[in-house]
Amino acid sequence: MTRPTAAMLVIGDEILSGRTLDTNTRTLAEALTARGIDLREVRVVPDEHDAIGAALNALRKSHDHVFTSGGIGPTHDDITADAVAAAFGVPIDVRADARALLEAHYTRSGQVLNAARLRMARIPEGAVLIENPVSSAPGFRLGNVSVMAGVPAVFQAMLASVLPTLAGGAPLLSATLRLERGEGEVAGPLAEVAMRHPALSFASYPFVAEGRFGTNLVIRGSDPDALARAEAELRAAVLP
Amino acid sequence: MTRPTAAMLVIGDEILSGRTLDTNTRTLAEALTARGIDLREVRVVPDEHDAIGAALNALRKSHDHVFTSGGIGPTHDDITADAVAAAFGVPIDVRADARALLEAHYTRSGQVLNAARLRMARIPEGAVLIENPVSSAPGFRLGNVSVMAGVPAVFQAMLASVLPTLAGGAPLLSATLRLERGEGEVAGPLAEVAMRHPALSFASYPFVAEGRFGTNLVIRGSDPDALARAEAELRAAVLP
Repeated sequence: MTRPTAAMLVIGDEILSGRTLDTNTRTLAEALTARGIDLREVRVVPDEHDAIGAALNALRKSHDHVFTSGGIGPTHDDITADAVAAAFGVPIDVRADARALLEAHYTRSGQVLNAARLRMARIPEGAVLIENPVSSAPGFRLGNVSVMAGVPAVFQAMLASVLPTLAGGAPLLSATLRLERGEGEVAGPLAEVAMRHPALSFASYPFVAEGRFGTNLVIRGSDPDALARAEAELRAAVLP
Repeated sequence: MTRPTAAMLVIGDEILSGRTLDTNTRTLAEALTARGIDLREVRVVPDEHDAIGAALNALRKSHDHVFTSGGIGPTHDDITADAVAAAFGVPIDVRADARALLEAHYTRSGQVLNAARLRMARIPEGAVLIENPVSSAPGFRLGNVSVMAGVPAVFQAMLASVLPTLAGGAPLLSATLRLERGEGEVAGPLAEVAMRHPALSFASYPFVAEGRFGTNLVIRGSDPDALARAEAELRAAVLP
């Protein structure tokens, strides 16, 4: 049983300069894992036309779904929509339905739909709009690419409307054993149990808490019975 | 004046599943920015030999420096060192100096250097060790690639010993104007000031605070006088 695959493309100098911590990737990763879609790759690129296009074309050909975050606002450095249109080789212009969403929003809030804001109604030909219940300026889907905002609250709202439309696979289940021992002490038995269960994946995540190393052992798979059997074996092998 | 470029390769299923929030990228980004090195690209890949090798070879050919995070522990899913050796086409084996570091550490702490832990002394031929003051198991540098641990405390310690050895460029300075207005209101004047200062970069970062949109305008450059002039112009253009 195979699961669909996905990739994330984070667009933004602010991530690469260290100014902003990217949390959209984890938001997406958690949501996809719950839906049975495997996030297989993430790339972060600067606000540059060619860098965005090259990364997007590499990712959309290798994965079932691609999600982007960032660069769809009103300022001169918001170039994601134009870069996506160029990567797909389609024209882009202000679209009536997107413009109407912005007009309604700015009228409601007593503001003006100026030239800068109107840039947010530029939509590549053939795209489907993604609703933005937070600030109205829409995202869009073109082919297998969902183009979403960078502001986390807006990214989350857009993702919530996109996710139900994606075909998922069997949800990935997991079991975790938390140990107050370094992973080097349990690596041997862990590998042995893992070898007996090739349909499951076994991972080990060290952590430091109160100055001591501990380890989370995580088993993942989509068959709950197989997972329970492996967890019992692992527990017997590594707990005193 | 050009600055050296860098890329980050984060290795780990735990990031892609959403289990763990990657903070090493921001740690690296802040440190490189302060040193005048431009972080140009980040990739996150799973714990898979071929995925690691393909990403590493793409990044190390395109950038002056590459940093990796994750996958150098003692368990069966820690395959970064082997994947790096394969990507460079060099052999890998347990090395005496790395083994000695581990022996000293485990002797000191009354533990055993078992077969799993000894895996952490596997170093690709030609590499230089990176000190690990937290838990002894070393990272290493091979060519322009620095291979470091995923646990944030260890990543930070390794980075601290690597950074002083890298040639930096002119530090990138920045000035920030925080506005309690949406970026759509200031996008026009921002673009005009930006056009008058082609040697500086101008960016706009929207945020949501207490339910309202605000904007941070950031100017970046390495000439402090030019930065101050541009900041004064921008302030006059966007503040009431």
